[in-house]
Amino acid sequence: MSKTNTTRVAVLGATGYVGGQVLAILANHPYVTVTTATTVRYAGQTLGDVFPALAPLADLGLTTLDAEAVCRDADVVLSALPHGHSARVLGEIADKGTTVIDLSADYRFSDPAAYQAAYGQEHPRPELAEGAVYGLVEHHREAVSGANLIGVPGCYPTATLLALLPLVKAGWVDASLGAVVDAKSGISGAGREAKTANLFCEVDGGTRAYNVGIHRHQQEMAFQARALGGAECPVFFTPQVVPMTRGILASVYVHTPEGVGVDANALHAEFARTYADARFGTVLPLGSFPDTKNVAGTNRFAIGVAAHPETRKLVVLCAIDNLIKGAAGQGVQCLNALLGLPEETALPMMGGVV
Amino acid sequence: MSKTNTTRVAVLGATGYVGGQVLAILANHPYVTVTTATTVRYAGQTLGDVFPALAPLADLGLTTLDAEAVCRDADVVLSALPHGHSARVLGEIADKGTTVIDLSADYRFSDPAAYQAAYGQEHPRPELAEGAVYGLVEHHREAVSGANLIGVPGCYPTATLLALLPLVKAGWVDASLGAVVDAKSGISGAGREAKTANLFCEVDGGTRAYNVGIHRHQQEMAFQARALGGAECPVFFTPQVVPMTRGILASVYVHTPEGVGVDANALHAEFARTYADARFGTVLPLGSFPDTKNVAGTNRFAIGVAAHPETRKLVVLCAIDNLIKGAAGQGVQCLNALLGLPEETALPMMGGVV
Amino acid sequence: MSKTNTTRVAVLGATGYVGGQVLAILANHPYVTVTTATTVRYAGQTLGDVFPALAPLADLGLTTLDAEAVCRDADVVLSALPHGHSARVLGEIADKGTTVIDLSADYRFSDPAAYQAAYGQEHPRPELAEGAVYGLVEHHREAVSGANLIGVPGCYPTATLLALLPLVKAGWVDASLGAVVDAKSGISGAGREAKTANLFCEVDGGTRAYNVGIHRHQQEMAFQARALGGAECPVFFTPQVVPMTRGILASVYVHTPEGVGVDANALHAEFARTYADARFGTVLPLGSFPDTKNVAGTNRFAIGVAAHPETRKLVVLCAIDNLIKGAAGQGVQCLNALLGLPEETALPMMGGVV
Amino acid sequence: MSKTNTTRVAVLGATGYVGGQVLAILANHPYVTVTTATTVRYAGQTLGDVFPALAPLADLGLTTLDAEAVCRDADVVLSALPHGHSARVLGEIADKGTTVIDLSADYRFSDPAAYQAAYGQEHPRPELAEGAVYGLVEHHREAVSGANLIGVPGCYPTATLLALLPLVKAGWVDASLGAVVDAKSGISGAGREAKTANLFCEVDGGTRAYNVGIHRHQQEMAFQARALGGAECPVFFTPQVVPMTRGILASVYVHTPEGVGVDANALHAEFARTYADARFGTVLPLGSFPDTKNVAGTNRFAIGVAAHPETRKLVVLCAIDNLIKGAAGQGVQCLNALLGLPEETALPMMGGVV
Repeated sequence: MSKTNTTRVAVLGATGYVGGQVLAILANHPYVTVTTATTVRYAGQTLGDVFPALAPLADLGLTTLDAEAVCRDADVVLSALPHGHSARVLGEIADKGTTVIDLSADYRFSDPAAYQAAYGQEHPRPELAEGAVYGLVEHHREAVSGANLIGVPGCYPTATLLALLPLVKAGWVDASLGAVVDAKSGISGAGREAKTANLFCEVDGGTRAYNVGIHRHQQEMAFQARALGGAECPVFFTPQVVPMTRGILASVYVHTPEGVGVDANALHAEFARTYADARFGTVLPLGSFPDTKNVAGTNRFAIGVAAHPETRKLVVLCAIDNLIKGAAGQGVQCLNALLGLPEETALPMMGGVV
Repeated sequence: MSKTNTTRVAVLGATGYVGGQVLAILANHPYVTVTTATTVRYAGQTLGDVFPALAPLADLGLTTLDAEAVCRDADVVLSALPHGHSARVLGEIADKGTTVIDLSADYRFSDPAAYQAAYGQEHPRPELAEGAVYGLVEHHREAVSGANLIGVPGCYPTATLLALLPLVKAGWVDASLGAVVDAKSGISGAGREAKTANLFCEVDGGTRAYNVGIHRHQQEMAFQARALGGAECPVFFTPQVVPMTRGILASVYVHTPEGVGVDANALHAEFARTYADARFGTVLPLGSFPDTKNVAGTNRFAIGVAAHPETRKLVVLCAIDNLIKGAAGQGVQCLNALLGLPEETALPMMGGVV
Repeated sequence: MSKTNTTRVAVLGATGYVGGQVLAILANHPYVTVTTATTVRYAGQTLGDVFPALAPLADLGLTTLDAEAVCRDADVVLSALPHGHSARVLGEIADKGTTVIDLSADYRFSDPAAYQAAYGQEHPRPELAEGAVYGLVEHHREAVSGANLIGVPGCYPTATLLALLPLVKAGWVDASLGAVVDAKSGISGAGREAKTANLFCEVDGGTRAYNVGIHRHQQEMAFQARALGGAECPVFFTPQVVPMTRGILASVYVHTPEGVGVDANALHAEFARTYADARFGTVLPLGSFPDTKNVAGTNRFAIGVAAHPETRKLVVLCAIDNLIKGAAGQGVQCLNALLGLPEETALPMMGGVV
Repeated sequence: MSKTNTTRVAVLGATGYVGGQVLAILANHPYVTVTTATTVRYAGQTLGDVFPALAPLADLGLTTLDAEAVCRDADVVLSALPHGHSARVLGEIADKGTTVIDLSADYRFSDPAAYQAAYGQEHPRPELAEGAVYGLVEHHREAVSGANLIGVPGCYPTATLLALLPLVKAGWVDASLGAVVDAKSGISGAGREAKTANLFCEVDGGTRAYNVGIHRHQQEMAFQARALGGAECPVFFTPQVVPMTRGILASVYVHTPEGVGVDANALHAEFARTYADARFGTVLPLGSFPDTKNVAGTNRFAIGVAAHPETRKLVVLCAIDNLIKGAAGQGVQCLNALLGLPEETALPMMGGVV
């Protein structure tokens, strides 16, 4: 895995689904060398023991996390450590001057009070949180390019904000009525920990809702709608698990304010304009709607829109691969922005025929 | 299949998923004898040729539809013929005095103009449509019990109306803002016809939206919200296919009018009260939400609720088995009401451990 | 759950998939009252907390296992306790004169040495093991009917022996070459314990082999081929997991001895004759082969056969639902035999249309 | 899609699963330019209309097949046309001097009589069939490198022969007893044609056997065992469909001749030696067995072995992705061999974390 003239990257939490996905993507990166891959459970083993499918990386050694060594051996850290745990460890690494791209929730809120409200614990490094940059490149490119500490969006917020932010920015959301987000996710979003509820038998053949109105991503959505979109937009969020491995389809419904037309053509034009240069985005023709299958395995997102004048409602649907555009791929997209590389470097663009 | 002192039933369109499901249920019915099972494609064969899993019915003979013979041999017709085709054939049968339970869309609109608006064709028997009864027993029991011609609700409208009608009846829906219905369905709702889009490879691993804002069930929902709920409630409907065979999970979002509290406890109490005597309904405790897996294979429905005061929104989620409570089972529930039998006669109540 | 004039049954290990399936079946049993349902993890809760889908049994209380109380309150014990643990507990219960139907492996070998060879531990109650009866009713009905202690066959051995025993009995197996059993199982066979390897994401989209040639069911197959079939038949067994919840399809290949014709018609005739009166068995026409989907949810088994004269090979394929015919249903089938009831009492015969 | 100094390739039958997969792979090929992509049903449309997931190829135009134009514009033809149809069209193209890589069955048998026996029709171009080369690069590299007309192995034969050929070559197969091949395939092997039996609802939740002992791949296996392995080896083949999209797991059982030891270590060593230099192959350690999930999305194959001295049996299991190593990828592997390129050029090696 040695390449010349490359950025040295450490991947923390490399043996979860997100961490493994980061490694799989970086294996194709011409300007990155992975110097460290950490794990709690599999230290001393190789990646081949954990993810046999990642055959070309089978011999990559796994170590326990040693912040000192990480900072010595890496220019950038891509972390898939669990939230709560991340804030302190990554703060320590950031203190030493190593750039941090955090895939957990710990640096997604530039307001520590908002973090505490969502995650129920005081932020241990509030001054760092305040300076962190939210890594949604499509809507925050310049800030990401110059950041030292990036909080990569959560999977549900990614799909949601790609749909919601253009509406907020266009002034098409009546803030007193806010937005409804109804999202369906594959179960890989729940991670690799052994839980009865996530066994094949428990997931196969069923669709279930959970944490309706209280999922912590709800607060991330509203926080960033305001932060990046520039206007208040309270969000009511219903997450659901569907029997598939990868993918999120989010339906984002808003009410337009009085005086704003409810016009599908204008809505479509606005999204087409917004994402005209988005390397990963597809705005589908009016009358077509996204299928997560068409973006699975890629860093792409697909958007479809519709309007309902009778109730002054707009809906924007956005499909992503939760592990790639919703996590690992977006982290690498941030890395590319940081390094001034073409945005799609190493990122998968081609889905499968089936 | 002969039983004494029973009602003679003909099942039309017996070789689709819904028709087959009707036969499977009626096989356990102590007061019904199936005298006729019709088909277009498999006439002259037996049910065992079409549905090997329905082993106890393997020898049931399949015939082409002959209205004359049907009326001679049956007291009640349960029809799973396709819509458009149904109106005329079933009208002819109804004319002869045979009771009709129609699982297609053709007799779901008591206003022929509303039917025409939704289905794009003039109703061939408007006078019959006007007298037909909508077969949502939980909200229309008395009318169903005395009906001659029943239009059984569609699968999406069933899940939706079980969630929406109590809200409408309670005056908790701001009609100017209406309702959002975001529903996820297993692919059996698309029927048994060979279509590329419904192949295993095309459905497996993906969630997709289709016909957003233009699905014909949207009009059925709004029509019946007014007809059964007694108030206007325009509906914006997003149907989605998820990679499973059976089940629908519908999320129904409404905005409460000014002056109505947005209170989860009151919301829960209202649903608990409404369905206290519903033989098939479960209202989950606050904080619990439905999983289609828990009602799959049964005629049951499960409801969960949540409220979001910040945006004056309520959500009610309802899970059903689309082929049973959303079609065949509901048809038999209507039959039981017609016959004055205990509502659950022959209807499956017990789901699977997995 | 009280019925008059019924047999009182205790279900041990009621909160695993097999135990829950036993309860679901017994709920429909007209001559059985479940008096006790035991659990390790969920004591003090109700079945509704564990299996929400089993709605009619939601209020059934769960207790810890107390052998004294079990024997006082039950005439028959149906046990889904794990093997190893079962032998001693059930031995104690049997000592008190309560009839035991054991779904674990502990009483499947009437030779304690064979048990030890397969399970790597000395049998704690060898004298009981020697007197226990193997509960494969189709091939051992009389013994089962009079048994006090029944070892119900494992899931793989059930599918295998239904295919293999008629071949062994007919003298159609060359013992020096034995049998190959290549079986595919849904993942519910692995139980409800939380294991990473059984998560949806790990099972979805893949077929995997495991324990080839060393699975303990291999020894059970060979032991019972000799015990019930009356001839030596060493077995080489390859188990595989396929991405589905329920079902086993076993392919059983044998070599015919010199002098025996290799004739598909004779083979088919032999199976048709053997299972002519089998209430749960279907022998498919020549040229048709089993689909587990057609027996899922039932206690049925389906058999297909083919012959290959060029290599003197026969194959018999058998499909079952692993949780029903391969476990819980077969246990109830044994109970019915014990009680002298019609064999299919309470046992599901009708699969689903999809 | 224009690259300089590249080989011009035409892909015939580009809108089936295999043809689409060929295009997806070639999009990453640095030395190939696709000049033509033909279709029957979608002529005049673009690939984006057919496979939205192949986003980078969305604008690729689809045309009807015109052999003249194909030969003018392409140096090599990769054909995914259906068998029967292929022989004549590709023969015409080969006549004009264009190199042909045929993914259908039509040029897999160098003996036209064997083709006729398997496919029930006279070969229209027997002289071409006799000179065609079987494209299993791992066992036929030299011949493939110099071929003008290549018959790429079928999906089942690929998995089977990778397991069987080393056994045949080592003299470890008793020809009088032959081999049993029991294989499990994802349903993409059935292609994209709309058939009721391949609908999601019909495949989901079930494993089914079909064409046992009469599948045409059985003859291809035996033919090539002799042709490439150098010894007679009749094969008895059981194909099965499991509910997944991609992947084949084949179990290949043989009987060793008298005098050959039945020794797992020797067996393992032989496979390790055979595939030591195979760029795509992994021979798993003794005691580990393949999972199709670990090779899905790649051109790799994984092999596991076991021995059973008691019955003188060996088993070798091989897992592949049926659409890649079993079809499209193997075709490109042949192309790379023809062009003298590194074997893995453009071919996917990295599977998914889930």
